[in-house]
Amino acid sequence: MEIFKIVLLFSILVSLSSMAATTSVVDFCVADFNYPVGPAGYPCRNPANLTVDDFVFSGLGVAGNTSNIFGVGVTSAFDLTFPALNGLGISMSRLDIGVGGVVPIHSHRVSELILVIEGEIIAGFMDSSDKVYYKTLNKGDIMIFPQSLLHFQVNVGKTPALAFVSLNSASPNFQTTTTSLFANDLPTNVIEKITLLDAIQAKKLKRIFGGTN
Amino acid sequence: MEIFKIVLLFSILVSLSSMAATTSVVDFCVADFNYPVGPAGYPCRNPANLTVDDFVFSGLGVAGNTSNIFGVGVTSAFDLTFPALNGLGISMSRLDIGVGGVVPIHSHRVSELILVIEGEIIAGFMDSSDKVYYKTLNKGDIMIFPQSLLHFQVNVGKTPALAFVSLNSASPNFQTTTTSLFANDLPTNVIEKITLLDAIQAKKLKRIFGGTN
Amino acid sequence: MEIFKIVLLFSILVSLSSMAATTSVVDFCVADFNYPVGPAGYPCRNPANLTVDDFVFSGLGVAGNTSNIFGVGVTSAFDLTFPALNGLGISMSRLDIGVGGVVPIHSHRVSELILVIEGEIIAGFMDSSDKVYYKTLNKGDIMIFPQSLLHFQVNVGKTPALAFVSLNSASPNFQTTTTSLFANDLPTNVIEKITLLDAIQAKKLKRIFGGTN
Amino acid sequence: MEIFKIVLLFSILVSLSSMAATTSVVDFCVADFNYPVGPAGYPCRNPANLTVDDFVFSGLGVAGNTSNIFGVGVTSAFDLTFPALNGLGISMSRLDIGVGGVVPIHSHRVSELILVIEGEIIAGFMDSSDKVYYKTLNKGDIMIFPQSLLHFQVNVGKTPALAFVSLNSASPNFQTTTTSLFANDLPTNVIEKITLLDAIQAKKLKRIFGGTN
Amino acid sequence: MEIFKIVLLFSILVSLSSMAATTSVVDFCVADFNYPVGPAGYPCRNPANLTVDDFVFSGLGVAGNTSNIFGVGVTSAFDLTFPALNGLGISMSRLDIGVGGVVPIHSHRVSELILVIEGEIIAGFMDSSDKVYYKTLNKGDIMIFPQSLLHFQVNVGKTPALAFVSLNSASPNFQTTTTSLFANDLPTNVIEKITLLDAIQAKKLKRIFGGTN
Amino acid sequence: MEIFKIVLLFSILVSLSSMAATTSVVDFCVADFNYPVGPAGYPCRNPANLTVDDFVFSGLGVAGNTSNIFGVGVTSAFDLTFPALNGLGISMSRLDIGVGGVVPIHSHRVSELILVIEGEIIAGFMDSSDKVYYKTLNKGDIMIFPQSLLHFQVNVGKTPALAFVSLNSASPNFQTTTTSLFANDLPTNVIEKITLLDAIQAKKLKRIFGGTN
Repeated sequence: MEIFKIVLLFSILVSLSSMAATTSVVDFCVADFNYPVGPAGYPCRNPANLTVDDFVFSGLGVAGNTSNIFGVGVTSAFDLTFPALNGLGISMSRLDIGVGGVVPIHSHRVSELILVIEGEIIAGFMDSSDKVYYKTLNKGDIMIFPQSLLHFQVNVGKTPALAFVSLNSASPNFQTTTTSLFANDLPTNVIEKITLLDAIQAKKLKRIFGGTN
Repeated sequence: MEIFKIVLLFSILVSLSSMAATTSVVDFCVADFNYPVGPAGYPCRNPANLTVDDFVFSGLGVAGNTSNIFGVGVTSAFDLTFPALNGLGISMSRLDIGVGGVVPIHSHRVSELILVIEGEIIAGFMDSSDKVYYKTLNKGDIMIFPQSLLHFQVNVGKTPALAFVSLNSASPNFQTTTTSLFANDLPTNVIEKITLLDAIQAKKLKRIFGGTN
Repeated sequence: MEIFKIVLLFSILVSLSSMAATTSVVDFCVADFNYPVGPAGYPCRNPANLTVDDFVFSGLGVAGNTSNIFGVGVTSAFDLTFPALNGLGISMSRLDIGVGGVVPIHSHRVSELILVIEGEIIAGFMDSSDKVYYKTLNKGDIMIFPQSLLHFQVNVGKTPALAFVSLNSASPNFQTTTTSLFANDLPTNVIEKITLLDAIQAKKLKRIFGGTN
Repeated sequence: MEIFKIVLLFSILVSLSSMAATTSVVDFCVADFNYPVGPAGYPCRNPANLTVDDFVFSGLGVAGNTSNIFGVGVTSAFDLTFPALNGLGISMSRLDIGVGGVVPIHSHRVSELILVIEGEIIAGFMDSSDKVYYKTLNKGDIMIFPQSLLHFQVNVGKTPALAFVSLNSASPNFQTTTTSLFANDLPTNVIEKITLLDAIQAKKLKRIFGGTN
Repeated sequence: MEIFKIVLLFSILVSLSSMAATTSVVDFCVADFNYPVGPAGYPCRNPANLTVDDFVFSGLGVAGNTSNIFGVGVTSAFDLTFPALNGLGISMSRLDIGVGGVVPIHSHRVSELILVIEGEIIAGFMDSSDKVYYKTLNKGDIMIFPQSLLHFQVNVGKTPALAFVSLNSASPNFQTTTTSLFANDLPTNVIEKITLLDAIQAKKLKRIFGGTN
Repeated sequence: MEIFKIVLLFSILVSLSSMAATTSVVDFCVADFNYPVGPAGYPCRNPANLTVDDFVFSGLGVAGNTSNIFGVGVTSAFDLTFPALNGLGISMSRLDIGVGGVVPIHSHRVSELILVIEGEIIAGFMDSSDKVYYKTLNKGDIMIFPQSLLHFQVNVGKTPALAFVSLNSASPNFQTTTTSLFANDLPTNVIEKITLLDAIQAKKLKRIFGGTN
């Protein structure tokens, strides 16, 4: 009877493994950084070499450093830091916002959900007709920032704020408006024309962010 | 000079509003439940009637009730509860897992990121070759559950656990394996054949979940 | 023999029409504005009522009015003005830029190709690492502005410039940075914090664009 | 003890139904033809009114009529005939090809897999560099016709052929080259120019297919 | 006159080949297994080296071996076995189901259409609210199994059954519920908690499928 | 005070660069032709090596050669000629159509917008029910050709025509009907059957386009 069981087991395993042989193994696609990225993400590591640790990321458990001009620490679980996200269309960032700190106005291709864990945050976005939507969020509140629209968060409470944002891309690529304008060599007279800001204002911010011209 | 300013302003506003007249207003698509849903979601409410409150949801700030057989409370911000998510491909749920409680094994079309806020959770998933990946997660850890694969969470700590999950669909539709098998009228002899479970086991679970046949 | 031909023709027509009866007619989806828009666009008009005129748009043949603060006329063939584009993921705008005029810095979800027909234009964009790419374009040049990134055009020639831009969405929704910040009621102190602009600068632009607070 | 069970059951059902209350019901989207189609398909019927019969289609079990000029019967399970396919991106057609019959050269947006059940069929397609790929298929063979490319099937056996084609759209919309050219009122001199066919040839085919001009 | 023709031909060929020089050759993307797979599939083989045989697969013409615990033979034309499917979003499998055999309950990311060729099959699926839809299918019937939902097939006839399933992915990755639970080292006590199955039942199935713990 | 500024600047730069370190650089994906193309396009060049010249293409500024049988010059900015388009889903071609010249009937997967710059062009398309839509276009007119449908353009004016077409793919792959039929070795008797054209007509066009058999 034991022999029967072993034979049965053997035939099952053969049958199942032959079934497996014809199925692809791309349930997921942990990024292999030995190859260049493409429009859909990085090539996948061989699943045979993966362990559960490839699917877990502990970097968001540590507070970000807020000692900078915006008073904000942004710690991100994106494809580059958490390669298991590659190809799966989701990522997360931790926001530590010091008292009076801000996530400066920025945008990205994809939509974002913020979840406030601690603190009191004014969050808002503008739509393409220039209407602004903003509100004070408290612990447990979530707010949606639709794809591609400018948005921001400001800690207006008396304590540091902690929030997490989820985005539906493994590589959302934040574009911060102020640094895009002033942290490079775009000539001041062009900035004046395309923003209607004054040259003196533009030059002041270029000095802060290292922009030239 | 004031007159000049007013005239200037007027011409700008005319110019800008004519520009606006040719741009669509679908930056977002807050669900209008007066129409049936379609493959891409619900039709959109008129943006003119929206306020910031349509983009904020406070329901995840309240602990879910864990007095049920799984010891878990799942509170969800999906299109039906938070209509601003409609069409944006993202949603979030709050998991309150009592001591010894579980999120039973389930699957959904889209990928999920779990973020542990409090407690000690064993989380895991199986891939299509039946390999299982599981690990104990602690506060601040995140783990990815790739699209469509079976996964679960178990509170293995001594205190209630709190976690939030983000999913890249506004309508992810959890399918729980155990209730899919035993909370309906699928005949026991069919269940036996398609699962290899014993009839006595199937009937026991049917009694718990109200399944017939 | 003629009779034979008629019978043959009849049987063919019956056969072909029965074939047609089982095929859907959604080769295209000219927008029906009697219904609300959804995440994928508007419902489709009945193709039986369409003529070739529904697929042709002549509005881009007329120069736009450049008498505004930016010296630019933008005329757009988007879903709202050219309903045949609905659901097809493409649109076009005509840019008339007066001498010294600009298309102010802006962004949109989708990618854009500019084609210069007349004039000399500095065009540029910033990527998410704040690097700026800009160059003077002349007649016949095209330039790509990748999805979601901030970009701009400035007429630096001695004559009015004419260009056409193609975008891969029927509803691209331009978001102009300057008006998003200053043409609404976002409080000046919030603007200061999220942009690092000075209050005096913010208030000056609010006066121009009608912003309050 | 029975009472205990009932109470337990009740609490479970309450718990499960409250869980259900926050999940969307769009696992599928059986087309509701009371509304117009949109770019992503038809709105969905209320799932509460569906039965298994909505998900089963028996129309492909019947041979198509091959008494037409091409000697082919095409029976299709598309969204319009099998509404459960709506939004799911898949469909199927049955091909009955008489002796010497053909599926004339045609194209469609999506890819197609043919499966030969009976008979001997020459099947082929041309790529965009005009290279042709064709081969005789027999029972059990499958062949892929990549999205949008021209392709055809010819019964070259001595018996009627039976095949099934799967396509990855619920509404693939076949465009038959010959009828597109000759079954309408496109003027013969335009046809000559855009195809390089002779007028006499064009007129001959217009007579067969009812084209004018 | 012959010379004229040759010159004409030559100029045409030059013209056409220069046209070809500016068009991409990715009409299709036959998988090149010398490179790792990525989120969108494998890189493409050079089309210059392809013949029609790369687009035809004969493996579904042979009955699968049903000598296993489920009494089923599944033969698949997926990207790994039929590389021409890569990137085209479609695949097909042949199901040979012995008398009393089953395709055990399983799920996959994408939708599936089954076509019954021979035999009598009970097929069914559960939706995310645990409603089950099942019915006996006969020759010529097709049934749709919507994306990601659990489903199964049972041969309830007196003869072997033959069916073909089409799926709208080149790599659909079946996940079989029973083997996902019992063919690995997930501890029995975790299985108990996440399924509510009894330990004795879990251990019995682990013995069959080689699971440990 | 200068020292303070330098320290401030330094801390900002460190903070910003550490922020940059966690963001992906795939704002765009200029094709790297050292690797094979995949279903989503080519792998990306390292953005650090790109300049603005990679994002500008001047090839459309030059008239195409119209000395060929169709009297048309097609110059294309596709991924292969303008690698910055890779992955961005948009491209453009310049059409120079001599007096009496044509863009012969053809199709491609994606939708196309034509913009007439000079001349008088009859443009048209057929839908899948064989209805033809055609009209004379003049300077400034645009017309949409929906995805995958057969379409054409004929210069019916007394001067050369100039137009630009935009397509929503970086690699649209035109398939010209006449050359697909007659510029290869598809046997004449197969062409007869699948098109209903006469053999003599087929052979005449094969001679022109170099087709054999």
